[in-house]
Amino acid sequence: MSERRVAFQGELGAYSEEAVVRACGANVEPVPCRENRDVVRAVADAVVELGVLPLENTLAGTVTASYDAIADQPAVHVIREVVIPIHHCVLGVAGATLERLRVVESHPVALAQCAGFFERHKSVEPHAAYDTAGAAREVAHAADPARGAIAGRAAAARYGLVVLAADVEDRPDNQTRFAVIARMPAKLSNGVAAKSILILSTPNTPGALVRVLVPIAERGLNLTKIESRPTGEPWTYRFVLEVEHVAGDPVASDALRDVRAASASFHVAGTYELTPMA
Amino acid sequence: MSERRVAFQGELGAYSEEAVVRACGANVEPVPCRENRDVVRAVADAVVELGVLPLENTLAGTVTASYDAIADQPAVHVIREVVIPIHHCVLGVAGATLERLRVVESHPVALAQCAGFFERHKSVEPHAAYDTAGAAREVAHAADPARGAIAGRAAAARYGLVVLAADVEDRPDNQTRFAVIARMPAKLSNGVAAKSILILSTPNTPGALVRVLVPIAERGLNLTKIESRPTGEPWTYRFVLEVEHVAGDPVASDALRDVRAASASFHVAGTYELTPMA
Repeated sequence: MSERRVAFQGELGAYSEEAVVRACGANVEPVPCRENRDVVRAVADAVVELGVLPLENTLAGTVTASYDAIADQPAVHVIREVVIPIHHCVLGVAGATLERLRVVESHPVALAQCAGFFERHKSVEPHAAYDTAGAAREVAHAADPARGAIAGRAAAARYGLVVLAADVEDRPDNQTRFAVIARMPAKLSNGVAAKSILILSTPNTPGALVRVLVPIAERGLNLTKIESRPTGEPWTYRFVLEVEHVAGDPVASDALRDVRAASASFHVAGTYELTPMA
Repeated sequence: MSERRVAFQGELGAYSEEAVVRACGANVEPVPCRENRDVVRAVADAVVELGVLPLENTLAGTVTASYDAIADQPAVHVIREVVIPIHHCVLGVAGATLERLRVVESHPVALAQCAGFFERHKSVEPHAAYDTAGAAREVAHAADPARGAIAGRAAAARYGLVVLAADVEDRPDNQTRFAVIARMPAKLSNGVAAKSILILSTPNTPGALVRVLVPIAERGLNLTKIESRPTGEPWTYRFVLEVEHVAGDPVASDALRDVRAASASFHVAGTYELTPMA
């Protein structure tokens, strides 16, 4: 195993590959995986050193497949998070122009984030594709100047496409937060600002959810995320909580102890130094 | 406007159309809409009397597009909820057999819910489609006995297909909860068990989320759902809370008053009589 292999979900040229570079530097080998849970498995099985998974986008919201994959595999730990800006480009083959484009393909979420571009270019029809980089690859393969893709600059470089229009997203502050996962938990110095990701289920009784939140509230910790996911068993849930606290602070460990006591199942998916958000 | 038109998202024959019949009876005209927000708009604009939207599935989780559509339109109210079992069938054209099938098309979530079927039928390849009923319509149109679709029985009847295998879902207790929406709030008798759906945002300060939850906790109300959704503004959220309480109970109205006071924005998307879940 190389020490520098980093798994990510999607095709080469995807935004997740940009996150790999941002999080781990350019001297790594990005390893594309089909599904989010394949990234977690590759880390758990030591096929790669690290994995990178999108947690949430500021327009589309939580990436539940990533949290599910992390929650299902207690052997991996979130050790860091990284936020990258998402700037979409319209890409085409050499010789293509915006005027000649008839179809632009991309992931439906990316298409929705570029509604203004399609308003301004009525002759271009949006077509849904499986992902952004995959759409770029298909367009390069088809070599048809009437077909374009919406993807990142990395996809243009990867597939030899030309950037016909840059920054076509409606909101220039569009961002995605990614988790870096590893087999060993992060080492933190006491006193630094930290975040813990908690995975828990509650007993199936009235008020159970609130009882796991009270210990966090009482101690004044900042709950920055709460997400419920189905367990498969009808109307029972697993929760993801993200809590900000000071590393090594007894107040935080007391709070987590009480949350654990109020939960039916509980594990910490990672405690890591908090990165200021853009 | 007919009094009996009911909007739903999807194509005729979709599970949502079954929910329309379950919620409103067979003597209604189901009106298919392309997007979840089109359902809400049709109700708000009085193009239809009622709308039906899926809120959550016991395997796939929350349908965020429905909550977003409801949250964005305070002029509509959730007046009832209905739970329907989701039993998938493999459908084919007349003359098709399971042995002759090469491809089975459906929504990716439905395909994932029938993994066991594909395990048992290695010669059949799953293909992703936009939705279940749309896959059935396409298969009927193609008239190719090697192509099948996974959809409900209603889709078979609608598109003249044959049920080649019934109940192919991995979990027979697979269910979806739907909301019925209207322009006027539900009328409730005091004392009945009720549920309220709250849409709120919190001030962007540490501990803000917990402060809106404490009034619910302190009064012993049952918080059955909490969901965070992005506002578009980076790292700020809108929350959906579902709270069970007794209709007309001053304890509940005090709790909601305090939740409102702790929120940056707040509205009740509906209070309705609680239906026991299956």
